[in-house]
Amino acid sequence: MKLFSSVHDVTDINALAKEALELKRNPYSHTHLGKNKTLALVFMNPSLRTRMSTQKAAMNLGMNVMVLNIDKEGWALELKDGAVMNGTTVEHIREAAAVMGEYADIIGVRSFPGLKDRELDYSEDIFNKFVKYCGVPVVSLESATRHPLQSLADLVTIEELKTKAYPKVVLTWAPHVKALPQAVPNSFAEWMCRADADFIIAHPEGYALSTEFTRGAAITHNQEAALADADFIYVKNWSAYEPYGKVMPGNEDWMLTNEKLRATNNAKVMHCLPVRRNLELSDEILDGPNAVVVHEAGNRVWAAQAVLKRMLEGS
Amino acid sequence: MKLFSSVHDVTDINALAKEALELKRNPYSHTHLGKNKTLALVFMNPSLRTRMSTQKAAMNLGMNVMVLNIDKEGWALELKDGAVMNGTTVEHIREAAAVMGEYADIIGVRSFPGLKDRELDYSEDIFNKFVKYCGVPVVSLESATRHPLQSLADLVTIEELKTKAYPKVVLTWAPHVKALPQAVPNSFAEWMCRADADFIIAHPEGYALSTEFTRGAAITHNQEAALADADFIYVKNWSAYEPYGKVMPGNEDWMLTNEKLRATNNAKVMHCLPVRRNLELSDEILDGPNAVVVHEAGNRVWAAQAVLKRMLEGS
Amino acid sequence: MKLFSSVHDVTDINALAKEALELKRNPYSHTHLGKNKTLALVFMNPSLRTRMSTQKAAMNLGMNVMVLNIDKEGWALELKDGAVMNGTTVEHIREAAAVMGEYADIIGVRSFPGLKDRELDYSEDIFNKFVKYCGVPVVSLESATRHPLQSLADLVTIEELKTKAYPKVVLTWAPHVKALPQAVPNSFAEWMCRADADFIIAHPEGYALSTEFTRGAAITHNQEAALADADFIYVKNWSAYEPYGKVMPGNEDWMLTNEKLRATNNAKVMHCLPVRRNLELSDEILDGPNAVVVHEAGNRVWAAQAVLKRMLEGS
Repeated sequence: MKLFSSVHDVTDINALAKEALELKRNPYSHTHLGKNKTLALVFMNPSLRTRMSTQKAAMNLGMNVMVLNIDKEGWALELKDGAVMNGTTVEHIREAAAVMGEYADIIGVRSFPGLKDRELDYSEDIFNKFVKYCGVPVVSLESATRHPLQSLADLVTIEELKTKAYPKVVLTWAPHVKALPQAVPNSFAEWMCRADADFIIAHPEGYALSTEFTRGAAITHNQEAALADADFIYVKNWSAYEPYGKVMPGNEDWMLTNEKLRATNNAKVMHCLPVRRNLELSDEILDGPNAVVVHEAGNRVWAAQAVLKRMLEGS
Repeated sequence: MKLFSSVHDVTDINALAKEALELKRNPYSHTHLGKNKTLALVFMNPSLRTRMSTQKAAMNLGMNVMVLNIDKEGWALELKDGAVMNGTTVEHIREAAAVMGEYADIIGVRSFPGLKDRELDYSEDIFNKFVKYCGVPVVSLESATRHPLQSLADLVTIEELKTKAYPKVVLTWAPHVKALPQAVPNSFAEWMCRADADFIIAHPEGYALSTEFTRGAAITHNQEAALADADFIYVKNWSAYEPYGKVMPGNEDWMLTNEKLRATNNAKVMHCLPVRRNLELSDEILDGPNAVVVHEAGNRVWAAQAVLKRMLEGS
Repeated sequence: MKLFSSVHDVTDINALAKEALELKRNPYSHTHLGKNKTLALVFMNPSLRTRMSTQKAAMNLGMNVMVLNIDKEGWALELKDGAVMNGTTVEHIREAAAVMGEYADIIGVRSFPGLKDRELDYSEDIFNKFVKYCGVPVVSLESATRHPLQSLADLVTIEELKTKAYPKVVLTWAPHVKALPQAVPNSFAEWMCRADADFIIAHPEGYALSTEFTRGAAITHNQEAALADADFIYVKNWSAYEPYGKVMPGNEDWMLTNEKLRATNNAKVMHCLPVRRNLELSDEILDGPNAVVVHEAGNRVWAAQAVLKRMLEGS
């Protein structure tokens, strides 16, 4: 594997999830693979889970890890080709990425969308330029439109906890006070559309995701109907795709509660975290027996380790 | 050992200090203990000595280390139970701590007091919630009211340098321009009250520490009397416990000088560092033969290593 | 080697460059040297290449690495002897350096000049105090007036790519919008003056470097004449040495272009990076076949590894 940026980079997602679970059982079975290999984790935005879990995954494989919080360290990158760099950017992504490729065997990159210019964000300009110029395998640590390590961990979690071959999985929009990217729901949707699941997306009017990611999913504005008999509920806020990045007032009643859980098949409740308590998800859910959000976060390690393992194997 | 937050977490402080000194002689005698184990160091406030020494201690034991400067990386934690998180906090400590526990075998946490609300600070709310929710052993990297790794290193230093079985140890207040926490003097006091030492605390009126930490110590406002025949002098500023966090003008003459050293038993001068030269401690002391502050800082490694070793051993 | 701060710390620069190229061929041939040894990298200014390459070099030698971005972490150091520290500095460099020396076997330090006070900058006060007080070997990660790891990597690159025993090497000034230090050109000049090269410096009037670094080099204000038959062109901006730190308007025509390359001996174009595209260097050069800037950045690893190896060997 040379690139892990979306579900399209994986031939068989079930085999990859299975490999992740195998690594969970035997974390240190491949420490030779990463010997003298270096992973560089480049963050243009803050991270807690992704940084820790990917770092741990790499260390489990015997790799060295270098973390660059490039946003915090005053290293403004120029992205535009042909730019006359007489302003505030100090280095072009062409050089920055290429140089990092000199020092790392695999690079992980995080870059959030600006949520101002949809075409720009959805072109994945920053991420793609990094891939183009760095010359080594790249794993997305969340890009403008996708968060594939999260989605793989989500798939792993569902595979691990499901009690039937073909569970009902609901992605439900949740309230928030800020405009958040569509990366996590986009990504979850495109993975679930290829997973062994009955997948349905519920959101208020005005929050339709790009059909590029949801093709094959059932979509409804009726949360109650969607939740009926659900085995897994994936809770997540996102801002509108059209008009891009907007947040409409209202819809506070979309927060998941125990009351709503009753109609489900004792559903497991998932969230990528961080979660705003009592806004996105109620205390009673998060502190109750149905929440699997911490377990899910734990699985980020094995998802990352499976991806890094394949990159190290060149397979 | 599952928790290292105060002197009360240690049955026999002399045995622990002895173990630290044994590790100083043989730093790499237990590298197998930490194999494939991860220490996460979570800093909500800046650190130099604690970060470097604890990291080095962990590496000496063969551990992997992940450092999170959570304060600098824009990760504002919500601490209040039941909060509706529609403000600026992005994640509740319940999830943040629990998730870190998924990625680390031991967690170190630093969290300073606000010095506004004594009850809140002295409840050790942040530290205790971290312990409660992370699910793995926790070592304090300085909390609102204590700095136990410092105190253990101080005990190690005294044990190493003392020339009599029962030395006279003086904790003396020093001037400063800012309101500093009581964590270091509290902690030093509670450790010295249990150490083989004749322990006395000297401070100006208005700077009495909480009796919770000083029970058993002699306390005086007469610095000169306290210093007579001292074997060790621990210099440290702190703000008032009552009225909480206040700094009273004056008392500049409490700075230690060579003149004052004359009445001592050629006392070793200690300080946890960082120290404000010519405010807390004079150049002549710090550059003179009696100061052992750098040596003391070096001992932070062995203190941390002894604690981490016990946590890894589960003993 | 106990100190690597300038060309004067190296007896035979060609032997050191050769050693670096040998390490490039066999990166992991000395992993035993660094076992249980710690490198602390202390940055008072941002870094990308230096941090990553030096960290990688250390890991190749089996060392542990601790990175301190001291500028970003709120740790303002006092430099002045005798200062009464009642202001904003929290720790004197005497203690800070000495304490770091307790935790590290080798320390790397980066500290840029202020470009306000030439005497102060050229005294290398910060760097020299670090060396004086830390008590362990120190490698410069770029100081006020020199960047020796860069210069060694530059020498390595020239040795590697040269097609004649005694190539013509041109250091040419380039336009910029900010006042930049003289460290890189100073350093390159003093290394090239001792290298097997025909070395010439070209810059507009007003940008003469200190003769301390350029003694032995030909110097001209005629870029075109300098470039004739050049084998290597080192492009770099710097601010004036006299009046110190000043930038004069104009000289935009000093940017290197393909047109100017024609008169050279198909010269390789070098730059320490980061480079401002279309200001310091044109896109056509950077994206063309003559630029070796990324390759040169890659050689930073082997330069650092050769230096660290000698420090570990104590040779």
